[in-house]
Amino acid sequence: MQQLDSHQYLGVRDDIAARIAAGEFKPGERLPSERQLQAGGGVARGTVREALFQLEAEGVIYRKDRSGWYVSPPPVVYDPTRWEGFMSYVEAQGRRPETETLSKVEIVCDGMLAQIFSRPVGAPMYWIRRRRLIDGRAVLIESIIVDAARAPGLIEHDLNGSLTSVLKTVYGVGVARNKVDMRPCALTRDEAEALRVKSGLPGLSLVRTCYDAQGHVVEFDREYWRHDALTVSVDIRVR
Amino acid sequence: MQQLDSHQYLGVRDDIAARIAAGEFKPGERLPSERQLQAGGGVARGTVREALFQLEAEGVIYRKDRSGWYVSPPPVVYDPTRWEGFMSYVEAQGRRPETETLSKVEIVCDGMLAQIFSRPVGAPMYWIRRRRLIDGRAVLIESIIVDAARAPGLIEHDLNGSLTSVLKTVYGVGVARNKVDMRPCALTRDEAEALRVKSGLPGLSLVRTCYDAQGHVVEFDREYWRHDALTVSVDIRVR
Repeated sequence: MQQLDSHQYLGVRDDIAARIAAGEFKPGERLPSERQLQAGGGVARGTVREALFQLEAEGVIYRKDRSGWYVSPPPVVYDPTRWEGFMSYVEAQGRRPETETLSKVEIVCDGMLAQIFSRPVGAPMYWIRRRRLIDGRAVLIESIIVDAARAPGLIEHDLNGSLTSVLKTVYGVGVARNKVDMRPCALTRDEAEALRVKSGLPGLSLVRTCYDAQGHVVEFDREYWRHDALTVSVDIRVR
Repeated sequence: MQQLDSHQYLGVRDDIAARIAAGEFKPGERLPSERQLQAGGGVARGTVREALFQLEAEGVIYRKDRSGWYVSPPPVVYDPTRWEGFMSYVEAQGRRPETETLSKVEIVCDGMLAQIFSRPVGAPMYWIRRRRLIDGRAVLIESIIVDAARAPGLIEHDLNGSLTSVLKTVYGVGVARNKVDMRPCALTRDEAEALRVKSGLPGLSLVRTCYDAQGHVVEFDREYWRHDALTVSVDIRVR
């Protein structure tokens, strides 16, 4: 195998990134093959691959179903200090949000959920699994738990929109506090399959606990995002 | 190769996670070998490996220098809505923060930095590279740019602490606004080497732009964190 020059792949990376930035390859478009990218550049195939992996790590390009490399659409910006939900902030950024309910079932409260909701083990809970898309691309998979006592019959409703709206308008349950914990993670088999990405791809795990004005947990949500789909952004000023 | 049962690895994962939670294996301790973990459980070696990869993805365990699997120390909590720096919030959580300056040099402002700092191309800038550790484990690598005109001679100072403090106390330069953009990423060669992790491991890329009260950029910082070292946490309430 040819020795990779430690700086050469960064040059190839910069070259491809500049062609994307200049609009030669547009978001959603397929890149030329590795062989074509290599041609004329006088670099090894391995160097081109390393540059492509670097761009994938940065979220600039992504792989799709073995059919090659594509230019990533721009990430949406998520500000956890704001109250807007996915359907609102994605649309506000000129993108098309969609929600697909994968399953909605009644379960019984286990030990972990009993602690989170301060409810007895065995109490009925709803478990909702959804996939969310931006401009037709799956970006997150989520697993939501809601106390069935607070929202009886919730899973009979259409949940392909804002769950917070359904809880508010149908059940009068409002959210007064939002605790969001985010951690980078690797997407393992189950999430990766649901997002149609390779297992091991980096992702963001986001856990949201929503409380009502009395401090009771209304909703407990675990989300797994593909890494190139969002930027978490917080802007604070001295008051 | 033996067929992996789709649920069996999650059972093994839960079993190891429970043993860690119960304190049988403590933070920083080495796990038994894969062979030992397999023994008696009646599961395939591949199932044990898949369970370990799952726990690594979740940040519960990590690999060290080919010497096996170790229990991850608990992540530190970082709240981007607060003003505290790394040295303060890590210490406040009962952990030991350290900063190592890897390099500090004068460079000239390029096109990208000219835009960020609103300074002419060619203006002198300082470029500081640091590694930060928690309890002796490298958790982030960062690259900081400071306008040399604002802090002449900055790189003559000891920068193994809080840079914000040096800017404030020595140069009277204070920060009035902090913009933080976070994205999950894969750690590629250069960052991975500096953090002594395998290339491709998930990480968090954090870009911080600090402004003074007049709206001038004081500091531009790019950080790469290993994924199991931090939880980003935001807690907001209706006012």
